[in-house]
Amino acid sequence: MPNARTFEDVFVHELQDIYNAEQQILKALPTMIDAAESDELSTTFKEHMEETRRQVTRLEKAFADLDLKPKGIRCEGMEGILNEGKELAEDGMDGPLRDAALIGAAQRVEHYETAVYGTLVAWARTLGHDRVANLLSETLAEEERADSRLTELAESGINTRAAAGQ
Amino acid sequence: MPNARTFEDVFVHELQDIYNAEQQILKALPTMIDAAESDELSTTFKEHMEETRRQVTRLEKAFADLDLKPKGIRCEGMEGILNEGKELAEDGMDGPLRDAALIGAAQRVEHYETAVYGTLVAWARTLGHDRVANLLSETLAEEERADSRLTELAESGINTRAAAGQ
Repeated sequence: MPNARTFEDVFVHELQDIYNAEQQILKALPTMIDAAESDELSTTFKEHMEETRRQVTRLEKAFADLDLKPKGIRCEGMEGILNEGKELAEDGMDGPLRDAALIGAAQRVEHYETAVYGTLVAWARTLGHDRVANLLSETLAEEERADSRLTELAESGINTRAAAGQ
Repeated sequence: MPNARTFEDVFVHELQDIYNAEQQILKALPTMIDAAESDELSTTFKEHMEETRRQVTRLEKAFADLDLKPKGIRCEGMEGILNEGKELAEDGMDGPLRDAALIGAAQRVEHYETAVYGTLVAWARTLGHDRVANLLSETLAEEERADSRLTELAESGINTRAAAGQ
C-alpha cells in the first residue's frame, strides 16, 4: 500500500482490494460449480455467482458515491485462498468427499470477505460515508448468510456421506 | 492436495495446513507487536501470541491423538493474508491510522482461522474424533473472541482518531 497517508486513502485501498477479490471469485466460481457433484451445492454456487455479480455492482455504486472510478488492486489474500480451492478441484477426489472439501474452501472465501466488509463498514461509518456503509452492510449480511448456508449443506449429509466413502 | 483419497486424508491435510498457518502467524506477530502504536493493541497482539503458542500445542495434541507426527504443509491462503499485513506494517503510516490498518489485517487472519477450525471441528465430529473436535473447539472459540476483541479496540477510539488524523 504505497503512499497511503490518510484514513480515506486506506479505506479506498481496501475498497479496491475487495473489488479485485470479488472479480477473482467471479472467475473461480464456474470451476467450483462444475466441480460440485451434489445438485444443491452446484445450485448454491450458481446463486452465489449471481449474488457476487450484484456485490460487484454495489462496489461500483460505492466508488461512484465517492466520486471515484472503480479500480481493483491485486488482492493477495484472496489469490492464496482461491489457489488452495483450485488445487482441491483438480485433485481427482469425487462425490461427497470433493463436495465436503469444496464447501471448506468456499467457507474460507466467505470468512475472508466477512472480515474485509466488516472493516469497510466500520471505516465507512467513521469517515461519514453512510450511504456506502449501508451498501456494504447488505453485502456483509449476504456473505454471512452464504457461510451459514454452506454449513447447513455440509451438515445435511455431505460430510456424513464423505466419511462413509459414498 | 495430491493423493488425498479418503475423508480422513483430507481432514489430516487440513490439520497440516492450519499447523503451518499457525507457525506463519507466530513468525508474523512480533512485527505486528512492534508496529502497533497503542499499548492496548500491542498488548492484545502479545496476548494473542501466547494464545497462538497454546493453539500450536493443541494441534500437536490432536496429531498425537491420531497417532501422527505433527507436520505442516504450506498454507497459501495464510501466506497471502500475512503478506498483505506485512506490506501495511512497512508502509510508513503511523499512529492510530497504522493501528486501524493493523486491526483490519489481523481480523482477516482471525476470520480465515475461524473458517478452517470451524470446518475441522465439524469434520472431526463426523469422523468420530471427538477428543480432537473438543480440542479444536477451544481454539475456534479463542479465534472468535480474538476477532471480537479487535473490533472492540477499533471502536474504542482508534478508528475515530485515525479518521481525525491524530
